[in-house]
Amino acid sequence: MMRADLLAESRHPAAGGEPWSRTEFEARLRERGAAYHIHHPFNVMLNTGKATPDQVRGWVANRFYYQIAIPVKDAAVLANCPDRAVRRGWAQRILDHDGFEIGGIADPGGIEAWLRLAEAVGLTRAEVEDLRHVVPGVRFAVDAYVNFARRAPWQEAVCSSLTELFAPEIHKQRLATWPQHYGWIDAEGLAYFRNRVSQARRDVEQGLAVTLDHFTARAQQERALEVLQFKLDILWAMNDAMAARYGVST
Amino acid sequence: MMRADLLAESRHPAAGGEPWSRTEFEARLRERGAAYHIHHPFNVMLNTGKATPDQVRGWVANRFYYQIAIPVKDAAVLANCPDRAVRRGWAQRILDHDGFEIGGIADPGGIEAWLRLAEAVGLTRAEVEDLRHVVPGVRFAVDAYVNFARRAPWQEAVCSSLTELFAPEIHKQRLATWPQHYGWIDAEGLAYFRNRVSQARRDVEQGLAVTLDHFTARAQQERALEVLQFKLDILWAMNDAMAARYGVST
Repeated sequence: MMRADLLAESRHPAAGGEPWSRTEFEARLRERGAAYHIHHPFNVMLNTGKATPDQVRGWVANRFYYQIAIPVKDAAVLANCPDRAVRRGWAQRILDHDGFEIGGIADPGGIEAWLRLAEAVGLTRAEVEDLRHVVPGVRFAVDAYVNFARRAPWQEAVCSSLTELFAPEIHKQRLATWPQHYGWIDAEGLAYFRNRVSQARRDVEQGLAVTLDHFTARAQQERALEVLQFKLDILWAMNDAMAARYGVST
Repeated sequence: MMRADLLAESRHPAAGGEPWSRTEFEARLRERGAAYHIHHPFNVMLNTGKATPDQVRGWVANRFYYQIAIPVKDAAVLANCPDRAVRRGWAQRILDHDGFEIGGIADPGGIEAWLRLAEAVGLTRAEVEDLRHVVPGVRFAVDAYVNFARRAPWQEAVCSSLTELFAPEIHKQRLATWPQHYGWIDAEGLAYFRNRVSQARRDVEQGLAVTLDHFTARAQQERALEVLQFKLDILWAMNDAMAARYGVST
């Protein structure tokens, strides 16, 4: 369920009780992994080899809309954040996705890697970049994420990134199962997933530290769980919309 | 005069006439340099050696508020910009100000350089970082700039950066006159100005290209001049506020 009321005050303004310890709070964030879209039927289909080429292509083309939104969302965090140390760490995410050339170091970036994945599954760059395949439900969900990051306190936007806690597993699953089931996809195209396994691990350290440091009162901790759930809902709703469009093969 | 109506529609929605040529448009942008704060009495005082140590310190401490706003303003541009190629170029500005460590390359950044300037003129980092010396008029002017960048179309926010056309000259003026007049300031402290001479030249190329490419109809070109004037007003108003607080020695 999308939570349209998320930008309103927390629904637990008077949440009572003692704050959870840092360890308990982190455990409660991590247990939300049960709602991660790794468990969505559309994703289960993709990662157990049951998807048709058209379903794979539909996913890649739709997920591209999320990929191009990520650096914009991360810039929104920076644009609301007065803490230079946090900005220095967070800026790396923008470079990771958009790519960069600094000194002798050049990285084409995650969006480019996703376009190579698109080509590997048989899509043209043009049909991905012009977003013709993006279904409205995916667009609305992704836009909700970007708008949240623009308008929420930056610590909440950071907290919303914590689905990264669960991301290495889903990328590893893709790397393990896709070559086995989808021999028609050039394995070079999977570089995005390989890169993100380590990047997501590094990113989550900063996001988790900010969250554990900032949300300390019990009502704030409840709010953080709500924000994380909102982001889980975004990813889940994207999969719902793709399942509705492309079906779920069993 | 601050233009509080700037976020409203252009005041020249029906501006008639043929578009200016690219060359003519650029010339009209450049001629706005006549209103650059290099000509403000407070700046003239600073750069002709007439300022007292307290006036120099007041300027450095107040201008720090502008320095820390710049990467936030630049992140706001990214956060509104769907063009990856533009983002890749623009992100460099954030790195320049906040500093970065990527691969073997480390740059402490422009904000750190400004803090070293502050120490060189006899301020403590603490009294600069806690903003105790920042006068309200400076704060309001800088905040107006950041809020404009957050809310305006990204091309207008880019255009507003074009005071960089005139910045190398003011930095060179400081580098030429400060060591001569203010022997009590450690010359090491002037590194910020040295760095910005080349950075501003590079930055303005991108800002100018975006502006000349985007604002093509006559009404748009008029709007671009209005946006540039808004930014000139920001810098001028900062100097007005500092002159009101610290006086202008003659």
